[in-house]
Amino acid sequence: MFSGLSAYTLTPMDHQQIDEMHYRQVLQRLVGAQVDSISVLGFTGSYAYLSENERRRVTDIAVEEAQSLPVIVGISAQETQTTLNLAAHAKHVGAAGLMLTPMSYQHLNDEEVFGLYQAIANAVELPLIVYGNPAATQYEFSDNLYAKIASLPHVCCIKIPGMPLSDEENHARITQLKALLPSHVTLGISGDPYGAAGLNAGCSTWFSQFGGVFPAQALAITRAAQQGYAVEAVQHSQTLEPIWSLYKQFGSGLRVMATAAEILELVKAPSLPEPLQALSGRDKQALAQLLSELKLR
Amino acid sequence: MFSGLSAYTLTPMDHQQIDEMHYRQVLQRLVGAQVDSISVLGFTGSYAYLSENERRRVTDIAVEEAQSLPVIVGISAQETQTTLNLAAHAKHVGAAGLMLTPMSYQHLNDEEVFGLYQAIANAVELPLIVYGNPAATQYEFSDNLYAKIASLPHVCCIKIPGMPLSDEENHARITQLKALLPSHVTLGISGDPYGAAGLNAGCSTWFSQFGGVFPAQALAITRAAQQGYAVEAVQHSQTLEPIWSLYKQFGSGLRVMATAAEILELVKAPSLPEPLQALSGRDKQALAQLLSELKLR
Repeated sequence: MFSGLSAYTLTPMDHQQIDEMHYRQVLQRLVGAQVDSISVLGFTGSYAYLSENERRRVTDIAVEEAQSLPVIVGISAQETQTTLNLAAHAKHVGAAGLMLTPMSYQHLNDEEVFGLYQAIANAVELPLIVYGNPAATQYEFSDNLYAKIASLPHVCCIKIPGMPLSDEENHARITQLKALLPSHVTLGISGDPYGAAGLNAGCSTWFSQFGGVFPAQALAITRAAQQGYAVEAVQHSQTLEPIWSLYKQFGSGLRVMATAAEILELVKAPSLPEPLQALSGRDKQALAQLLSELKLR
Repeated sequence: MFSGLSAYTLTPMDHQQIDEMHYRQVLQRLVGAQVDSISVLGFTGSYAYLSENERRRVTDIAVEEAQSLPVIVGISAQETQTTLNLAAHAKHVGAAGLMLTPMSYQHLNDEEVFGLYQAIANAVELPLIVYGNPAATQYEFSDNLYAKIASLPHVCCIKIPGMPLSDEENHARITQLKALLPSHVTLGISGDPYGAAGLNAGCSTWFSQFGGVFPAQALAITRAAQQGYAVEAVQHSQTLEPIWSLYKQFGSGLRVMATAAEILELVKAPSLPEPLQALSGRDKQALAQLLSELKLR
C-alpha cells in the first residue's frame, strides 16, 4: 500500500495565512508528475505550525486537487483529542491514509506512545502509517513497540528514519524488522539522502521532501530502485549530494526545499511560517546556482 | 521584578477539557500561601497541549483568582502569530508578565530565535521573561544571544536551566552571566532540585513546579535563601531528594507533580492531557507514601 514515491508537500504561507493559490500549484505539480502518493501535513508541511482549522483546510484542498492520487494526511498533534479530530476529518473528506508521529513537548514514554496509536487505530478506519522521527520528536521506537503497534488494526506501514549504513547492514536491518511485523505491514524510508538505499534494501515506499518539489527526479530514482537498478538509483541520489549537504547545513530539508520552491516560483517568499526563515541573500543565490547546475527545475 | 518564588501551576484536565473548578483550587492554594508570583501555562501548565482559546481561558481564570498576586503567562507557541495573540490577550486581561521559550518542531537557529523575541518585545508592553529550556525545546541559548535579547525592550529576566554544579561554580556562572546583561535584567532559576542553589548563587527568582503544588515548603526554602541562610535552604531542598529522584525516573516533574496533586485531591485523576499519563498503581502508592513521610500535604 502506498508503495513507490510518496511526495511530501510544503504548505506555503502568505502573511501567516495558508497561501491557497500556491499550495494548489504545489499539488498540481505532483499530480502532473504522477507521483505514487501525496503526503500532506508532515514535517515538510509545517503541520506543527498550523491550527486545527488550518489543517482541515489543507486536507480539503489536497484531496480536491489530487484527482486519483492517494492523499496521506499527517494527523500528529500534541494532544490525542486533536489527533482524533484530524483523523476523522481526513477520513470524512476522502483521504487515503493517515500518518502519525508521537510528537510531544513532554517526552513520551512507551505506554503513552502505544496508548496514542491505540486510540487512533481503534477510532478511525483508514490505513495508518507509523512514523518514527527521533530528531524532531525526541522519541525513539524500540523494535518491540514497532511490532506491538503494527498489530493494531489499520496499521499499514512503518516509516523508519534514514539509515546511514552500508548496503549489507541496510539489508540486514530491514530483514530483521520485517520478521517482527505482520506481512501486510510494509516499511517506508524517510530522510532524502537515504531514499535510494532504503528502497534497495527492501523498503516499499520513499517518503520524500525532495520529491515534493522535484517529483520527476525523485520518481526517476524510485523507479530505478523498484526495477532492480540498485546501483543506478544510488548513483542518481549521489548526484544530489550537494543538496543533501545543505539539509545538514541548514538543520533539515524544510528550509532548503522551501527556498528551492521559492526560487522556482512554485511558492511566494517568505513561504515558511514564522519564526522559521528560509535561506536568504548569498545562501539563496548559491542554492539557485546549484539547482541550475543540477538541472533541477 | 518577580523575585522570590514563582509557582508554576498545573492545568488540570477533565475529559480533555480544562477542569476549571479544580484549576481554581490550584490557584487558591497559591494565593493562600502567598507565593511571590504565579506562573501559568508553562511546561507544568501543559501549555503545548492546549488550544489558543483554552490558553486564553486559563489566563482569564488565573488573573481572576490571583487577587493581588502577579500572574506571569507563558505565551510560547510553534508559530509567532499565536505567540503575539496570546501576549496581547495576557496584557489585555491584566497579567503582570510574559514568559517565552523558543519551542519549535523544526529546531530553530539563532536568527530565528532572536526574530521571535524581537517580534514579541516590540509588540507588547509587558515585562518579558526569557526562558531557556534545552531539554524540551532542543535549543540552547549562547551567552551572546542572551545578552542580545536582554537588550530588547521589556525583557526583565532570563530564566536559566538548573545548574548541577558546585557552589563555587554556580557563583562564577551567575556572576559571568550578570556581567553580560543590563543591570535591570535579573536571573531566574528553574529545575526544582537546583532552586535553592540557584537562589544562593545570585538568581532572584525560583520558578518552581514543586512550588505550584507545595507552596509552603517551596516558600520556606526561598525565604531561607533570600535571608542569607544558604546552608539551611540547601539542606531543606536536600530533604526533598526522593521527590527530585522521581522527576528523573518519570522523565520530568510534570507527571510527578500532577500525581501529587491527584493524591492531595487538589485535582481529579486523570488530570493530564492525553497522551500524557500520570503515575498509577504501585508508583502512585509509593508517591503517596513518600508525601506522607515527608509531611508534604
